[in-house]
Amino acid sequence: MAEFSLIERIRARAATRGDVLLGIGDDAALLRVPEGQALVVSTDTLIAGRHFPRESSAADIGWKSLAVNLSDLAAMAATPAWASLALTLPSPDADWLDEFLDGFLELAQAHEVALIGGDTTRGELSITVTVQGFVPADQALRRSGARAGEDIWVTGSLGDAAGALKQWRQGGLQSAKLRYRLDRPTPRIEAALALRGLATAAIDLSDGLVADLGHVLEASGVGAELDLGRLPTSRTLADHYADETLRWNLQLAGGDDYELCFTAPPSDALAIEQAMAACETSATVIGHVRRERGLLLRTPEGEAFVTQSSGFDHFGEAGA
Amino acid sequence: MAEFSLIERIRARAATRGDVLLGIGDDAALLRVPEGQALVVSTDTLIAGRHFPRESSAADIGWKSLAVNLSDLAAMAATPAWASLALTLPSPDADWLDEFLDGFLELAQAHEVALIGGDTTRGELSITVTVQGFVPADQALRRSGARAGEDIWVTGSLGDAAGALKQWRQGGLQSAKLRYRLDRPTPRIEAALALRGLATAAIDLSDGLVADLGHVLEASGVGAELDLGRLPTSRTLADHYADETLRWNLQLAGGDDYELCFTAPPSDALAIEQAMAACETSATVIGHVRRERGLLLRTPEGEAFVTQSSGFDHFGEAGA
Repeated sequence: MAEFSLIERIRARAATRGDVLLGIGDDAALLRVPEGQALVVSTDTLIAGRHFPRESSAADIGWKSLAVNLSDLAAMAATPAWASLALTLPSPDADWLDEFLDGFLELAQAHEVALIGGDTTRGELSITVTVQGFVPADQALRRSGARAGEDIWVTGSLGDAAGALKQWRQGGLQSAKLRYRLDRPTPRIEAALALRGLATAAIDLSDGLVADLGHVLEASGVGAELDLGRLPTSRTLADHYADETLRWNLQLAGGDDYELCFTAPPSDALAIEQAMAACETSATVIGHVRRERGLLLRTPEGEAFVTQSSGFDHFGEAGA
Repeated sequence: MAEFSLIERIRARAATRGDVLLGIGDDAALLRVPEGQALVVSTDTLIAGRHFPRESSAADIGWKSLAVNLSDLAAMAATPAWASLALTLPSPDADWLDEFLDGFLELAQAHEVALIGGDTTRGELSITVTVQGFVPADQALRRSGARAGEDIWVTGSLGDAAGALKQWRQGGLQSAKLRYRLDRPTPRIEAALALRGLATAAIDLSDGLVADLGHVLEASGVGAELDLGRLPTSRTLADHYADETLRWNLQLAGGDDYELCFTAPPSDALAIEQAMAACETSATVIGHVRRERGLLLRTPEGEAFVTQSSGFDHFGEAGA
């Protein structure tokens, strides 16, 4: 099976949308952006053994390669529209491709994303996805909008994916629930759209809370204080990691959560709770923005310590 | 040097444009598409040892990774605007990156393309670029517009890159001129823009004339006859490959030319010649479109034979 057959296989399964004037099969795709909307573009690469365990199922890899990109659109409060897929495979394996597309297209369909093009080539397994979406330019959530006194929120719960990765590395029994959170992250699109006009800054948590919140603080020229006792924690994570300090570490530095972290004035807290309830996404205030630079972490016992930015670095040694 | 430093290094050198509302450094780029224009998107991956010789200079790899993508925009008659760069490197080598950016940004600047985002990660050397541009939807050059009786044109000359690749594989003396054409292909943007309203179908020659013209013929539901004696041939190629049959083979199946192949009614031949002269690009009629399917090749002696589609397949064994 050669390159053209792989592309044909992808084309046969790719859904389309009214704004796709020309999809897979020409030299480039031809698309219509709605008037009055800014175009939002993000690209992420996933490498086997670094961004997912090598033995991950093709369907999980397909899901995750789109999910981490949609998560970036969510962080801008953009409505997803289109995706391009650059797929590098060790061999042109049609069964693997079909399974990969099962996961990729399941998530694409859930968000009405059309696969509009890409490239297939031979090499070490690697997936680069480029996603595009729309947002009115003045409603985009940038990293630079956080102001002193605002609340810091996160959606969902933190640390599950890192907990799964740690179990997998240690080679012992693994929790299926934690592993699902590592393999099938949920891009928080609905929550992000509901936060337009409410949140002042946002980022998605890919590299870990401390590192990613650090980007927001740096871009906004502020600092923050976090209450460790408030970090949203799944029952499964608490069951598997009873030690509080170990758990905090997973939640602060683990990465791969793909939850949204955002800021908003305390006066909007009720409106945010209602907006999150309307899209069935939990959200929790975990601290507040301070004028003083740096990140202060406070334990439930009131002990405070300053942390240095650290998280999942795709060039570091911590890859999956 | 970690991922964030590499991104910082890229950001520091990336030029911007007025339609980039937010470039490198947030979760996604925020862009403005001009009203009345369709968005044109293309993605191509380059793998070391497959799309370029492993010992290629970083600057040449940078140039080529953008050039092959701009060539896809040219094939749609789109004006280039933005590029995203997903770069996978064996190690975070700042010197290599700087040199890569020298080549990439030299070509980007020549076409006023802004680098708006991307990703850096560790792995086998691989570059995926996504480019975006604009074209009024009704002026886009599709593969499906060729009609029986039309002329088939190509820009520039054919076979130089394939000639260079063959010399390189054989390990003997190499022509610097041919090698330059392999390492630094010229995307035919100016020619493509001049062909709006004149050409009826177009494709860029990446996989070889027979294979790529084959895509146009298939999409248009037609066949073609080519005069081998008319294939535009550089003096250097003729010097290095005196044997006519060998040279035709390079020109028909070699790939990596990144010239445009397009169709147009004979009544527009003069207008096309004038348009090409105005942008200092040579263009040659090499045959014509026929109602009968299939591709007929005619030698200067009048001998005719039918060819099967064959060209550079990125999943085949013919990689660089």
